[in-house]
Amino acid sequence: MGHALDTIIIGAGTAGLAALREVRKRTSRYLIVNEGPWGTTCARVGCMPSKSLIEAANAFHRRHAFAEFGLRGAEALSADIPAVLERVRKLRDDFVAGALKATDNLGTARRKGRATLLGPNRVDIDGTAYDTRSIILAPGSRPTLPEEWLAFGDRMLTTDTLFEQSTLGPRIAVIGMGPIGVELSQALARLGLQVAAFTTGDTLGGLSDPVLNAELTALLKKELVLHTQAKAELREVTGGIEVSSGPHRMVVDQVVAAMGRVPNIQYLGLETLGVPLDERGMPEVDPGTLQIGDLPVFLAGDANGQTPLLHEAADEGHIAGMNALAESPTRFQRRTPMSIVFSDPQIAVVGQRRADLDTEHTVVTGMVDYAQQGRARTALRNQGRLCVYADRSTGRLLGAELCAPEAEHMAHLLALAVQQKLSVHDLLGMPFYHPTLEEGLRTALRDAARQLPSARESDLSSCPAMGVAALE
Amino acid sequence: MGHALDTIIIGAGTAGLAALREVRKRTSRYLIVNEGPWGTTCARVGCMPSKSLIEAANAFHRRHAFAEFGLRGAEALSADIPAVLERVRKLRDDFVAGALKATDNLGTARRKGRATLLGPNRVDIDGTAYDTRSIILAPGSRPTLPEEWLAFGDRMLTTDTLFEQSTLGPRIAVIGMGPIGVELSQALARLGLQVAAFTTGDTLGGLSDPVLNAELTALLKKELVLHTQAKAELREVTGGIEVSSGPHRMVVDQVVAAMGRVPNIQYLGLETLGVPLDERGMPEVDPGTLQIGDLPVFLAGDANGQTPLLHEAADEGHIAGMNALAESPTRFQRRTPMSIVFSDPQIAVVGQRRADLDTEHTVVTGMVDYAQQGRARTALRNQGRLCVYADRSTGRLLGAELCAPEAEHMAHLLALAVQQKLSVHDLLGMPFYHPTLEEGLRTALRDAARQLPSARESDLSSCPAMGVAALE
Repeated sequence: MGHALDTIIIGAGTAGLAALREVRKRTSRYLIVNEGPWGTTCARVGCMPSKSLIEAANAFHRRHAFAEFGLRGAEALSADIPAVLERVRKLRDDFVAGALKATDNLGTARRKGRATLLGPNRVDIDGTAYDTRSIILAPGSRPTLPEEWLAFGDRMLTTDTLFEQSTLGPRIAVIGMGPIGVELSQALARLGLQVAAFTTGDTLGGLSDPVLNAELTALLKKELVLHTQAKAELREVTGGIEVSSGPHRMVVDQVVAAMGRVPNIQYLGLETLGVPLDERGMPEVDPGTLQIGDLPVFLAGDANGQTPLLHEAADEGHIAGMNALAESPTRFQRRTPMSIVFSDPQIAVVGQRRADLDTEHTVVTGMVDYAQQGRARTALRNQGRLCVYADRSTGRLLGAELCAPEAEHMAHLLALAVQQKLSVHDLLGMPFYHPTLEEGLRTALRDAARQLPSARESDLSSCPAMGVAALE
Repeated sequence: MGHALDTIIIGAGTAGLAALREVRKRTSRYLIVNEGPWGTTCARVGCMPSKSLIEAANAFHRRHAFAEFGLRGAEALSADIPAVLERVRKLRDDFVAGALKATDNLGTARRKGRATLLGPNRVDIDGTAYDTRSIILAPGSRPTLPEEWLAFGDRMLTTDTLFEQSTLGPRIAVIGMGPIGVELSQALARLGLQVAAFTTGDTLGGLSDPVLNAELTALLKKELVLHTQAKAELREVTGGIEVSSGPHRMVVDQVVAAMGRVPNIQYLGLETLGVPLDERGMPEVDPGTLQIGDLPVFLAGDANGQTPLLHEAADEGHIAGMNALAESPTRFQRRTPMSIVFSDPQIAVVGQRRADLDTEHTVVTGMVDYAQQGRARTALRNQGRLCVYADRSTGRLLGAELCAPEAEHMAHLLALAVQQKLSVHDLLGMPFYHPTLEEGLRTALRDAARQLPSARESDLSSCPAMGVAALE
């Protein structure tokens, strides 16, 4: 068509790299431009450093079970916070190095700088304009931080800066209790810091099931100070930052703002595309094609604000990369929704959320309480609950919410079941090994099955509970 | 029919209790007879006490990761073996009490004593003969122990006696490295005992994949002395029991015989049934009905020697309980085979074993090594491998063998996939959250997919690896 380039990828995070992989298969006439640090959000400041911190925190927390197990000397254990953070960074650097390799050897196709749209076929990169047949936007997201809080300087942390600290606390406030707030507040408390968490809402970590949310709230309150429906105000006082909300106030050394993330679209020039933008400045993006309107412009990853999760960003980059160079875009069937929070118990939401289902009329709920579950008891991890939601007439599994030990694994099992359109009876037909936490899931499935039309008696899926704690 | 009773259940373990549950729904004209201790093998001497021991051992073993995590003081930790065993028994007693409740309030239907068949409709219970329309045999199994080793008295342990000890070691030999031998030898070693294990074969824990078996063997050799293809000889020496095999010899305080279990059929009177018995004295049993020949006699649970696992015993009791009182027996479709060994890394075998598949011609193998897997590295649990086996022409998942962290969970996911006849591409279409161990499973699935006919490009299941360690 006479354009100098086939595509320009803006952003070299997970979505941009996934797009790059597809673009490189198809053309050498492309650029990939990144502003700020290279390496993905996941590897630099997200999934990987947070999981490294959480693993250390949970290993330390486990000492509370030692006496009951018959293990002595737990009182001598301590968490060396600088060493914990040092290890997080060491591992982080290694993961980032891996991500950087994906853009090695690209030569001049790899550009460092700010890219701004000049229209649907034209991009400015640090003052030079490039004509291009298509554009893949994958600029990522950044933590939300109220501007007035910048005054607290380096005591005001986000995930961008938390893992860079040489030490932390000892008094920390965490503002916001979505997935990141829940993970970090619990991990920091488990490492021995005094943590107070504030959230304006009353649901935590993305759970919509009120029973699970109440359970999680109660469990977290055993480990840290938690104020829900509490908007936090900050002010400088002698000795630190005072965090207050209504009658609650405390002075802390550092504040972690975990109030969500916003798309990096402020300098992107979306207004030059000639399509309607909503009040956040966002265009409409087709989730099946990632296309903006009928333009040769694709918006993938965290920046489109749809499902800011790594595995979705990778899919979106893949889709955008293929579609940007195709004659006409292909519409992809997206995967079953799944989100996991790496707290303890872990939180997971699979398929449709309870809040989006009519549990009064058309949907049955099956629940298990892990407090008395056999395997969980042997492991001293008997906390949490799990709910499955199934269509009342067909028994088809529609979704699940979990606040349970090792929920991350059962979430994958349930996601496969939802994706394959399986029913509660289909799941009850599979083997459940003894003793496993999956037997708890089976208890929830049986609870749901009791509320459904019967399966054939000659089907092992109708095999009922033994009523024996050791066996469920 | 004129029989005084509708059925007699011989054995009140898992299979017998599952049968009882069905029998009680259908008749009050039954007896359940048990010889020896009540409570299931699982609750008394099997799954539950072993898992309680393993959880304590793994919690203690985790201290080796503490310095790397930045946690101090691990050198002060010790395992109080008597306290560990005391806790195992306390929990065990509670699980047994739960199992006992299943036979509470049965009145005279509950009999203690030895039952022996007098024919297909007649049973002797401690000297009294009973006529019955049907019989459910569920006498369970017991550990194999060479008779000459009884001479070592209370230093010769099996799972029947191990958990009863007030203390253990410090020097222990474990003879046999099937699932029980692997679990116990590693747990005892992790609790700080000096453990030497001997096995006559060269495969461990039921693995048939040579690559996984080699990996497990190497990993176990870091934690304990392990001799494979080594038949152990025992003799009394000054200071203990000498265990020797070829050039290898050591003196130990106790020996754990983990050489498998044999059906409790020696007093059962199977020869009165008038059906052929094999060299072990076993009749042929239909796995779909649990019926012996066309007799009104059903043999369920460990005693039939088919699949001595709790969840199978529960199914078999269920089937036998229904069929014993039915006009004609129903044939059940059994669940997908699955076995799990609670070692670390855990072992699991799902569906068809590698040894039963033609991996040279009709079956492709996909493998992942967890050494460099992202999540496993954050948790300092990056050991082990996992293999999936799929039909070369259809991509259908046929089986899997695992020697991997948290294999018990991925085994359930794979069992569901095998049971539902899903393909590698079906599995690659599901979401894999980041960062999880399931992403390692995805790597193995992608490895298999590369050897299979392509899926549609427009399908997210064909989304390839990023080639970035942090993201797989």
